[in-house]
Amino acid sequence: MPHFDLPLAELERYNPARVEPGNFDTFWADTLAEARQFDLDARFDEVDAGYTELITEDVTFSGFGGHPIKGWMLRPRHVVGQLPAVVSYIGYGGGRGLLSEWTGIPSAGIAHFVMDLRGQGAGHRTGETADPGVGGPHFGGFLTMGIESPADYYYRRLFTDAVRAVEAVQSHPAVDPTRVILSGGSQGGAICLAAAALSPTVIEHAPIAAIVDVPFLSHVRRATELVNTAPYSELVTYFRTRRHSEERAFETLSYFDGVNFAARATLPALFSVGLLDDICPPSTVYAAYNAYAGEKQLVVYPYNGHENGGPFQDAEHLAFFRRILGR
Amino acid sequence: MPHFDLPLAELERYNPARVEPGNFDTFWADTLAEARQFDLDARFDEVDAGYTELITEDVTFSGFGGHPIKGWMLRPRHVVGQLPAVVSYIGYGGGRGLLSEWTGIPSAGIAHFVMDLRGQGAGHRTGETADPGVGGPHFGGFLTMGIESPADYYYRRLFTDAVRAVEAVQSHPAVDPTRVILSGGSQGGAICLAAAALSPTVIEHAPIAAIVDVPFLSHVRRATELVNTAPYSELVTYFRTRRHSEERAFETLSYFDGVNFAARATLPALFSVGLLDDICPPSTVYAAYNAYAGEKQLVVYPYNGHENGGPFQDAEHLAFFRRILGR
Amino acid sequence: MPHFDLPLAELERYNPARVEPGNFDTFWADTLAEARQFDLDARFDEVDAGYTELITEDVTFSGFGGHPIKGWMLRPRHVVGQLPAVVSYIGYGGGRGLLSEWTGIPSAGIAHFVMDLRGQGAGHRTGETADPGVGGPHFGGFLTMGIESPADYYYRRLFTDAVRAVEAVQSHPAVDPTRVILSGGSQGGAICLAAAALSPTVIEHAPIAAIVDVPFLSHVRRATELVNTAPYSELVTYFRTRRHSEERAFETLSYFDGVNFAARATLPALFSVGLLDDICPPSTVYAAYNAYAGEKQLVVYPYNGHENGGPFQDAEHLAFFRRILGR
Amino acid sequence: MPHFDLPLAELERYNPARVEPGNFDTFWADTLAEARQFDLDARFDEVDAGYTELITEDVTFSGFGGHPIKGWMLRPRHVVGQLPAVVSYIGYGGGRGLLSEWTGIPSAGIAHFVMDLRGQGAGHRTGETADPGVGGPHFGGFLTMGIESPADYYYRRLFTDAVRAVEAVQSHPAVDPTRVILSGGSQGGAICLAAAALSPTVIEHAPIAAIVDVPFLSHVRRATELVNTAPYSELVTYFRTRRHSEERAFETLSYFDGVNFAARATLPALFSVGLLDDICPPSTVYAAYNAYAGEKQLVVYPYNGHENGGPFQDAEHLAFFRRILGR
Amino acid sequence: MPHFDLPLAELERYNPARVEPGNFDTFWADTLAEARQFDLDARFDEVDAGYTELITEDVTFSGFGGHPIKGWMLRPRHVVGQLPAVVSYIGYGGGRGLLSEWTGIPSAGIAHFVMDLRGQGAGHRTGETADPGVGGPHFGGFLTMGIESPADYYYRRLFTDAVRAVEAVQSHPAVDPTRVILSGGSQGGAICLAAAALSPTVIEHAPIAAIVDVPFLSHVRRATELVNTAPYSELVTYFRTRRHSEERAFETLSYFDGVNFAARATLPALFSVGLLDDICPPSTVYAAYNAYAGEKQLVVYPYNGHENGGPFQDAEHLAFFRRILGR
Amino acid sequence: MPHFDLPLAELERYNPARVEPGNFDTFWADTLAEARQFDLDARFDEVDAGYTELITEDVTFSGFGGHPIKGWMLRPRHVVGQLPAVVSYIGYGGGRGLLSEWTGIPSAGIAHFVMDLRGQGAGHRTGETADPGVGGPHFGGFLTMGIESPADYYYRRLFTDAVRAVEAVQSHPAVDPTRVILSGGSQGGAICLAAAALSPTVIEHAPIAAIVDVPFLSHVRRATELVNTAPYSELVTYFRTRRHSEERAFETLSYFDGVNFAARATLPALFSVGLLDDICPPSTVYAAYNAYAGEKQLVVYPYNGHENGGPFQDAEHLAFFRRILGR
Repeated sequence: MPHFDLPLAELERYNPARVEPGNFDTFWADTLAEARQFDLDARFDEVDAGYTELITEDVTFSGFGGHPIKGWMLRPRHVVGQLPAVVSYIGYGGGRGLLSEWTGIPSAGIAHFVMDLRGQGAGHRTGETADPGVGGPHFGGFLTMGIESPADYYYRRLFTDAVRAVEAVQSHPAVDPTRVILSGGSQGGAICLAAAALSPTVIEHAPIAAIVDVPFLSHVRRATELVNTAPYSELVTYFRTRRHSEERAFETLSYFDGVNFAARATLPALFSVGLLDDICPPSTVYAAYNAYAGEKQLVVYPYNGHENGGPFQDAEHLAFFRRILGR
Repeated sequence: MPHFDLPLAELERYNPARVEPGNFDTFWADTLAEARQFDLDARFDEVDAGYTELITEDVTFSGFGGHPIKGWMLRPRHVVGQLPAVVSYIGYGGGRGLLSEWTGIPSAGIAHFVMDLRGQGAGHRTGETADPGVGGPHFGGFLTMGIESPADYYYRRLFTDAVRAVEAVQSHPAVDPTRVILSGGSQGGAICLAAAALSPTVIEHAPIAAIVDVPFLSHVRRATELVNTAPYSELVTYFRTRRHSEERAFETLSYFDGVNFAARATLPALFSVGLLDDICPPSTVYAAYNAYAGEKQLVVYPYNGHENGGPFQDAEHLAFFRRILGR
Repeated sequence: MPHFDLPLAELERYNPARVEPGNFDTFWADTLAEARQFDLDARFDEVDAGYTELITEDVTFSGFGGHPIKGWMLRPRHVVGQLPAVVSYIGYGGGRGLLSEWTGIPSAGIAHFVMDLRGQGAGHRTGETADPGVGGPHFGGFLTMGIESPADYYYRRLFTDAVRAVEAVQSHPAVDPTRVILSGGSQGGAICLAAAALSPTVIEHAPIAAIVDVPFLSHVRRATELVNTAPYSELVTYFRTRRHSEERAFETLSYFDGVNFAARATLPALFSVGLLDDICPPSTVYAAYNAYAGEKQLVVYPYNGHENGGPFQDAEHLAFFRRILGR
Repeated sequence: MPHFDLPLAELERYNPARVEPGNFDTFWADTLAEARQFDLDARFDEVDAGYTELITEDVTFSGFGGHPIKGWMLRPRHVVGQLPAVVSYIGYGGGRGLLSEWTGIPSAGIAHFVMDLRGQGAGHRTGETADPGVGGPHFGGFLTMGIESPADYYYRRLFTDAVRAVEAVQSHPAVDPTRVILSGGSQGGAICLAAAALSPTVIEHAPIAAIVDVPFLSHVRRATELVNTAPYSELVTYFRTRRHSEERAFETLSYFDGVNFAARATLPALFSVGLLDDICPPSTVYAAYNAYAGEKQLVVYPYNGHENGGPFQDAEHLAFFRRILGR
Repeated sequence: MPHFDLPLAELERYNPARVEPGNFDTFWADTLAEARQFDLDARFDEVDAGYTELITEDVTFSGFGGHPIKGWMLRPRHVVGQLPAVVSYIGYGGGRGLLSEWTGIPSAGIAHFVMDLRGQGAGHRTGETADPGVGGPHFGGFLTMGIESPADYYYRRLFTDAVRAVEAVQSHPAVDPTRVILSGGSQGGAICLAAAALSPTVIEHAPIAAIVDVPFLSHVRRATELVNTAPYSELVTYFRTRRHSEERAFETLSYFDGVNFAARATLPALFSVGLLDDICPPSTVYAAYNAYAGEKQLVVYPYNGHENGGPFQDAEHLAFFRRILGR
Repeated sequence: MPHFDLPLAELERYNPARVEPGNFDTFWADTLAEARQFDLDARFDEVDAGYTELITEDVTFSGFGGHPIKGWMLRPRHVVGQLPAVVSYIGYGGGRGLLSEWTGIPSAGIAHFVMDLRGQGAGHRTGETADPGVGGPHFGGFLTMGIESPADYYYRRLFTDAVRAVEAVQSHPAVDPTRVILSGGSQGGAICLAAAALSPTVIEHAPIAAIVDVPFLSHVRRATELVNTAPYSELVTYFRTRRHSEERAFETLSYFDGVNFAARATLPALFSVGLLDDICPPSTVYAAYNAYAGEKQLVVYPYNGHENGGPFQDAEHLAFFRRILGR
């Protein structure tokens, strides 16, 4: 059934009570403080990929635990002065990919930093970053890794990397640190919500806007009751096998749920949702959107699934950049 | 079974006898002569899509029957002098799409012309071009449209458009008409083979190279016996319904089979094949590659399907452009 | 889930507000007037298919635009005097088929006219009629052909053919023009609703009854939200690719929606519905049935899908014929 | 893979060694002798189904064990003198269905007898005949019922019914007993092969021809190795569950395999095969065809599956009737 | 959609009106009286399967119609005195299986009797028991066998066997007849509900408890509207083919529906349900549970389907045995 | 196609050239030596799970890197003297499960040690063991974890655990260390081959036999070309994403391929194969079996897939135990 979730009118006012641990903020403050004790050590090494109109760089910086995290930086070759920059986070299973996947934003005169994802990068886009984490019994990829406790959960490490990535891009001499925009779709949207909420708490120059397309990892319990598609299905399989494990897992997840980050994020934001999305169901996206604490707008694609606007949403991004950057 | 086609060693020497009508060349000479009686009427109207580093233009030119055919032209804003150009043809069901899909090649300092496909552009990429053709009973999209005779077949109109597209790009003042490269994957690869074989017969400055990724519409009879995936499945459904129609249809198809164009094309060419490709099976790709009359190279992706090299193949394209363009 | 639509009690009173353009009636009046300027030119050529008890004829008449439309006529050989006649319209993708598919109704002493469908006849039943229409970008078969405007939409041509088919059968010397019954299932049901509403506005002897089994193209917007099976899926794919195109398309569709024809049709009618029908969902059938303006009855098949009553519905047809024809 | 079986050239000469028990003929002679000790007791009760041009009758006769077996008889109302007749056997899961399914053959001036199948008639066509057999552990429908021994196997009862059906139709006063043709597709084709081989051994007037479309239950062991579609999948599931049971089952099946009946049948025969048939794979059809001992012809449908020729094959039937009946 | 049925809060109070024939109790009283006229004739023949710690026996007793029914008995070798016993009933398609499948309960010091199922035992566990019943037209396995009347329905015979099995185990010298517990999942749960309701009406020592995991054949009409998975799909196919047959079938089913047995059963009972169960949907399980007349508890598995608790439920069984047996 | 791999006659002689690195033996000698520097520290803590006839213990010992590895030990309560023991390894995604899954072997008078698998235990059987390994980009579960080098590969750690497990069971006072048998199916079969080859090189009392059912991770390259089912599909996805990575990965895999261990293992062994196995294709099983260096027997299940003999194979195990243990 294409429209399997709530009707649009109900989605628009869908605002479920948030489940949030009492020490949410101290958990993250401690986590970020611990990570920032490591030197950021951001390096940008130029690579020649044949793009004569761009400067392309291989990036390394220190993420959670001081672990080396990779990324790409692309920027227009012919622009003079410091550039605004976009930091992008990738969807589940992917890494930073290859440079040819990222020529659009620099063609619009904006520097583009693409963060690699620890452990990921073998499912749809290549990555080069290892995750030296401790893994208890888990199923599939990353969603159930360390889910027995917030301290061990994979996304604690990943979201911390994401905050440090903002610092890394701001350290680049060609980038204007006061004009950084965050962006991501699906898992990247979840990371973006976390970085939008967390980075202003620790970084001097907060990012100025966020793009959150069809965010994953939001209102997770409902998602597991609505869909059994990857990656939420990894939770379902985990719960199916390890019966009675769900409550403890949902407690861990409450430290990472996009809805809780949304309620703390105040940057101007552009969201999108596909009403047929059976990967990140619309009600879970609306739950994050309706909880979002900043100025916000939502592009609705009534006949799209998780692919949402595709190139139409690219055009929305460009228009949003123009508006935010005042050009 | 992932490797469902011939073993690699047999694929490499797979060279089936070609089935070719006696009047193949006169059919196409007559078709192109007829189309070129219409004024080309190529127009390039600049559009602002927010790409500050590029000049982007909406294109219209006259294709088969003088019908208006749309396209996009993108080129780097900061380059002085005439540019080499790539002409791209799109896969089945798609059109020219939106501009954000095409920023890679101009970022490499090359003009990029993307031809829209008549009637297509509603299946995976948008298009804006109508097809005022006569359609007998057909199933699905375009593969069985007019298949009762070569004169009425949809691909007669489409391949003619493709030749005229080369003329259109060569007419652009910013393009060096002696440095045009053809490119396409899947149906785009089939169009590319046709344009590579046909355009030198009628155009003053022949294209100088061709990229043919996982070509469709090649060795078609074998394809219908090996796979029942879209779009070849449209033929299977047509034959299943209209029993005893297949011989007449294969006679029509012999005027359009990529293998017959390959045997006539002499431009240096880069091919790719995915050994798990169940859309355009590897043996049909090898049949075209092994028949190809020009200097050629083939990139083999042993564990990929129709997506073949994805961004890895983009990198091969850039390297091929460098070699062909001597930079 | 077998019963995926509304519960039966809600279906029975389901009567959504109709969305109807202000010029619906003039649009169709103009369309039919234009078509009737062409000479009907109905020809009936006897063919020998081996049915000794029947007379079988190949039919040609002029439809929309004066285009030649094919059909079959079968009637009992041993009956004296003018016969009542049934006109049948075919489901999506099919044509008039072969004669062996139509021996039932003439065996009941009734002439049977089966109209071929322009462009269709390659998906499940053969056809022989071309469609010289203009086609913008579309996906799949016929449902999205010309959907950008009512004037260009495929179904404008097809529904006009259907009205002319009634005139053609009435012109046959062996047929009593005052005893013609319309019939069709699925797309044929949609055509039947259109012909039931439109033919009385222009033809001297209106048909006397209509059979509308599991009608397609009714309450279309809801259908696209309930199911993603062919052929409604062709709309979903079109909307998914061509984002933001749906409102314009639904405006076009409002000229062709079965619910709007139902509200204008006054012939006695027999409907059927399958409560598990995921091709033409039950609520869309009830929407047409509940809107139907004439005397009506509905046969409900609680455990059937789109196949509805199959041979059981054949028996309902025969009983309905008897009642309508008073024998 | 559409063409999953042997290439056509190999199919044409495919003639595997038959596996046949030494007492095959005495087994069947004893079985038929035992059944024929019951009075045939054929009754024909006219029913009014609304077919004014036909006489339609409900049939009952005594099959295996004297069990009452149902059927339909349809014949043209306006023909004088004794008629030739066709006896039809039904595919797996079906019964005699409703009368509207059988108007074609009487429209061609031939009486049509459709035998109901004991126990079947709930899967795709209704039936009314019980099977008071003894059933050991079995899976699914009928294919594994009593497979532990030839004496208990379901098809012993069914094939015996089929021979008695020929006697029943020959007993009808309107039928010319010297002009009876057997016909069936799929399971009906298997029954037809059995009746063609067995009925001449016990009945005064042997049938004069047979139509065997895409026969089931032929070369069964190979079928279970080639396909896992219903109904052969019932054997695979049975063997999968009851490991080490296959050899005993294949011994039972050797008394019922169509290939062994084909080698004994001498009536002129018309076969058909679909080269994409994954229900009754082509090599198993060719095994029966190539073993067939009578004059024979085969219609090949290269792009059809189990549906084979559909209405095209109906036309082949009519032409075959004409040739056999000399009209 | 994982949670496709009612929300948990509604499930917990789901208590639909029961549909029950007036002569339900006399029907069963007559049936059991008739069966008990046959001598029980329970035999226990020791077999050596290599389990040195257990005594394993092949069982035969007289079920419905006096037909021989098989089973297994396993008990600990080193226990002195009469043992409590568990009687187990098997899920759809299975039989008593092999001895290695049943070592758990005797390892807990309890005798275990596993009843074979007539006709079944070829779908997932082997069986050895024939069903000499009369079978009208049916589809698939056993669910539609004889469904035209309560007297002929397959489950009349099977449920009667189940009551006699209790008598058989109580006749074993090593078993304490006052400490017998019934157990079964899915179809076995349905049998268990029947045996729990019926056996106290005829047997001297009623069983003392029952385990009913994810019971099948409960609230059947709703099940056929909610799911189309095997085995409920066999009903859907039957109704789809034999249109208008459902009311008579549901009347038959009302004599066998688990909800009606639940309302009569007073033994302490342990139930389980999987909230994602699309074989036996949760609302049908709750319908039985909420109607159950005895002391009861329900283990809910929110992320499990029909497999429910698997080994976690085994542990619940052991705890339940301890509580019921007071150890 | 059920029989999708080589015909049985070819399977029986299938013996492909092994691909083996020159330092295979030193790699493993070094690995085991390093692991054995950690104290084994095997602990056995009795748990009460309600099995009165068994003694059940929770096990912990030190595996690779000294990491704590869990397990279960079950043994008959009533046997006097040291027992023979079976060590079992689990299939992909599973852990040691719950105790109710393991009552069979102790019921046969043999101690049963079930090793937990690091990181696994969330896909089909629960586990409790963490894997503190370093993970580069990987897809899915464990098959691609660290595949860039033999030193980092997940199976280096797992196979080392398996050897230490043998030592752990031998350290139990109730176990006769000279009568230990290894056993495993699928991934467990692969572990078993490794332990059979490796443990005699470092342990005083070598195991005396091995059961290897449908082994995984054998002849891996062929497997990836034959099937795309989980878990081999994880390799295919990894190669599909990370193009050109396969040769390096296969080099790593050559240190872990079951065929190379088989060629070094000399214990008497019982294998099984399912000819329809599309998880571990038959030719890959035969490759291991035919390479196996010890006395061996193979049970062939012609109509089974990866489930192979199920309880029938349990019976083969018991018979094999009897033969090996001389009882």
